[in-house]
Amino acid sequence: MASKFYIDNLAKHVGQTVTLQGWLYNLRSSGKIKFLLLRDGTGVCQGVMVKSVVGEEMFAKADQLTQESAFAMTGTVRAEQRAPGGFEMDVTNIEIISVAKEYPITPKEHGVEFLADRRHLWLRSSRQHAIMRVRHEIIRSIREFFAGRGFTLLDAPIFTPAACEGTSTLFETDYFDLGKAYLTQSGQLYGEAGAMALGKVYVFGPTFRAEKSKTRRHLTEFWMVEPEVAFNDLNDNMDLAEDFLEHIVSNVLKNRMPELKTLERNIQKLEAVKRPFPRITYDQAVEILQKNGVAFEWGNDLGATDETIISEQFDRPVFVHRYPSEVKAFYMKRDPQNPKVALAVDVLASEGYGEIIGGSQREDDYDVLLQRLKDHDLPQEAFDWYLDLRRFGSVPHSGFGLGIERTVSWICGLEHVRETIPFPRMIYRITP
Amino acid sequence: MASKFYIDNLAKHVGQTVTLQGWLYNLRSSGKIKFLLLRDGTGVCQGVMVKSVVGEEMFAKADQLTQESAFAMTGTVRAEQRAPGGFEMDVTNIEIISVAKEYPITPKEHGVEFLADRRHLWLRSSRQHAIMRVRHEIIRSIREFFAGRGFTLLDAPIFTPAACEGTSTLFETDYFDLGKAYLTQSGQLYGEAGAMALGKVYVFGPTFRAEKSKTRRHLTEFWMVEPEVAFNDLNDNMDLAEDFLEHIVSNVLKNRMPELKTLERNIQKLEAVKRPFPRITYDQAVEILQKNGVAFEWGNDLGATDETIISEQFDRPVFVHRYPSEVKAFYMKRDPQNPKVALAVDVLASEGYGEIIGGSQREDDYDVLLQRLKDHDLPQEAFDWYLDLRRFGSVPHSGFGLGIERTVSWICGLEHVRETIPFPRMIYRITP
Repeated sequence: MASKFYIDNLAKHVGQTVTLQGWLYNLRSSGKIKFLLLRDGTGVCQGVMVKSVVGEEMFAKADQLTQESAFAMTGTVRAEQRAPGGFEMDVTNIEIISVAKEYPITPKEHGVEFLADRRHLWLRSSRQHAIMRVRHEIIRSIREFFAGRGFTLLDAPIFTPAACEGTSTLFETDYFDLGKAYLTQSGQLYGEAGAMALGKVYVFGPTFRAEKSKTRRHLTEFWMVEPEVAFNDLNDNMDLAEDFLEHIVSNVLKNRMPELKTLERNIQKLEAVKRPFPRITYDQAVEILQKNGVAFEWGNDLGATDETIISEQFDRPVFVHRYPSEVKAFYMKRDPQNPKVALAVDVLASEGYGEIIGGSQREDDYDVLLQRLKDHDLPQEAFDWYLDLRRFGSVPHSGFGLGIERTVSWICGLEHVRETIPFPRMIYRITP
Repeated sequence: MASKFYIDNLAKHVGQTVTLQGWLYNLRSSGKIKFLLLRDGTGVCQGVMVKSVVGEEMFAKADQLTQESAFAMTGTVRAEQRAPGGFEMDVTNIEIISVAKEYPITPKEHGVEFLADRRHLWLRSSRQHAIMRVRHEIIRSIREFFAGRGFTLLDAPIFTPAACEGTSTLFETDYFDLGKAYLTQSGQLYGEAGAMALGKVYVFGPTFRAEKSKTRRHLTEFWMVEPEVAFNDLNDNMDLAEDFLEHIVSNVLKNRMPELKTLERNIQKLEAVKRPFPRITYDQAVEILQKNGVAFEWGNDLGATDETIISEQFDRPVFVHRYPSEVKAFYMKRDPQNPKVALAVDVLASEGYGEIIGGSQREDDYDVLLQRLKDHDLPQEAFDWYLDLRRFGSVPHSGFGLGIERTVSWICGLEHVRETIPFPRMIYRITP
């Protein structure tokens, strides 16, 4: 391990002779000089190979290298401001590790389905590298945020005996002698048990929806992070979400600027994501829609187009809170000031990216929650353990869920969530 | 948020009057003084309430507090070396938030099934807190380790079209018009694609086995972290695993000592987990077994008892490498020096905890891998994308998988993996 050199570390080796191992990204010949672009997963380095230095045989050997052939390249590291990454190598030797047959993804344009069928190779492109690194940074920042604030990670189960919100969109599997198990849609109910035990917890894992939605915002399998905090009310919940989003975006700006540039992201739009975020009620959102000529009726849920119109009024994410209780889940607490609305809050990302966070203060009264289960025709027995949280030391508490793929899509400025995860799963795709 | 005080932060508030919110852990009365133990998820703080200070009414109000009742306690923070956590509170006021009815988990002994049925409440015990915090720290350390070494997180898919190692132990679900999807048993094959793209990656997510094993080491749903590195051979792989385990254990020792003490863990055994770890071949392992009177035949896989005997020879984790290829997976590269053995390596944890890591150098030759698929009766078509990794720029590469729950079990010194995860799933348990 110690003897390996990586391109993202070349600054430490200027003037030294090192060996890089990787794949041929591109090869240009110009008479007696060859320019070999080697990628090693951490970056791309240009090797300059001069015939008079390496000799005819070595010079000719480089011609065997096709796109994505694996090879080792030895030479002296030199600072070169014009080079991507800032360094070049004066090549003294190359070793061919394996020659790639005709690599299917060429610099020409390919259709998205062609690329998606070759996702395992498509990941080698600089654009996909950039997205994966931003995804990595977002997830790293999320965990750092919670660990730094005394939250305990609470991994909720994937197999659940009952549904959080209806059963029509659940994947199911046989589970030994216990009947069916359903794949989780949200770890929230378990997060609530965790908050009563550990005060501040976050759930972070894959979640599943068997929804037949074929939009640019839907995956059947996606990752969600869900903090839950005892004694937090709706305002505390919004404060937390605000800190959280600012932390994520500012970390990506700080640590992944080259990647954002590769993606040609508008940096200024991200730099605007600063506290405080505007906070409007659902009622105010309805007013905005009506002023913009949308025939929107109070009581409906906001659709994707509505969210776009609302988010376009602001230069940063916007909180919309106090939705009609009818359109929200059974576990959300109603506003004591106005029981027609729930203490729910969504965050709409800027630039029309729509909802990235959904959350609420939870119903903490045993009798009210029991009635709500009945109103929603949910089986009381399956939720008996959840009711226990109101039987034994119930306290006000709140939480929210952030969808990772939608967040990656927003921060990277992508058109479709399918590029935000290494191997996307959609209703028509389960390979490779 | 800013106005909340937590017990793990009391050192900053000595001499100040603060309000803590939490649950009653215990209440002792001694004539004109009451001792209220409040837990808030971050710790436990003793409040000292003196009748002559708070008055008769307030003093009597405290008697309403049953175990796990929620309340707020206000008073002055005082350093007190003898107190758990080092601080006490001179109470001036309490507010009752909710009174718990008869809390089922009392300080008396309960059977494990009784507790497991009430897992959502059992998590409130100090022992379960300690385990969850150690789990959190292990996972935090793992991600820190890889992020610090330039690895990119690669979330592998949960839904897979084919099995990595046979289909008899797979959970399956209907997948729209595409037939069946199987829940992943390992993200490794996807990790390999990631390593060819990004050089150094790690996969980290839940994995699933529909195995009918009812042992203290088996869950149907468990978390696994799987690094994969291009250009690493078997020795590099062992170096990485060694650094990795030392990093995890030393972080837990550094950051979670109070929790280890709660668990009455033998600290010296953990302090011994230092590089270098012994590295023995499978052949040497067989010798050890035979010397210890086990009638072990060359060619068999090591069983749990065998692993215990081997690990007891050492004071730290031990690498066992170069297993008979017949007992290992199709994708493992054979040793060029001796094709009867695979370049596989397992790590057996110390103190008889058995295998926590399994890994190998991967087969990187297209023709050999193709033959191996045929030998194992695996459908070539399903693995065509995986073969692509050998068609286009194949390089030596290695990786391993670490089971999180077994690691938590080992580091915490537990008897059974069921306590290592918030909501364990076993063949006979899918609730709560």
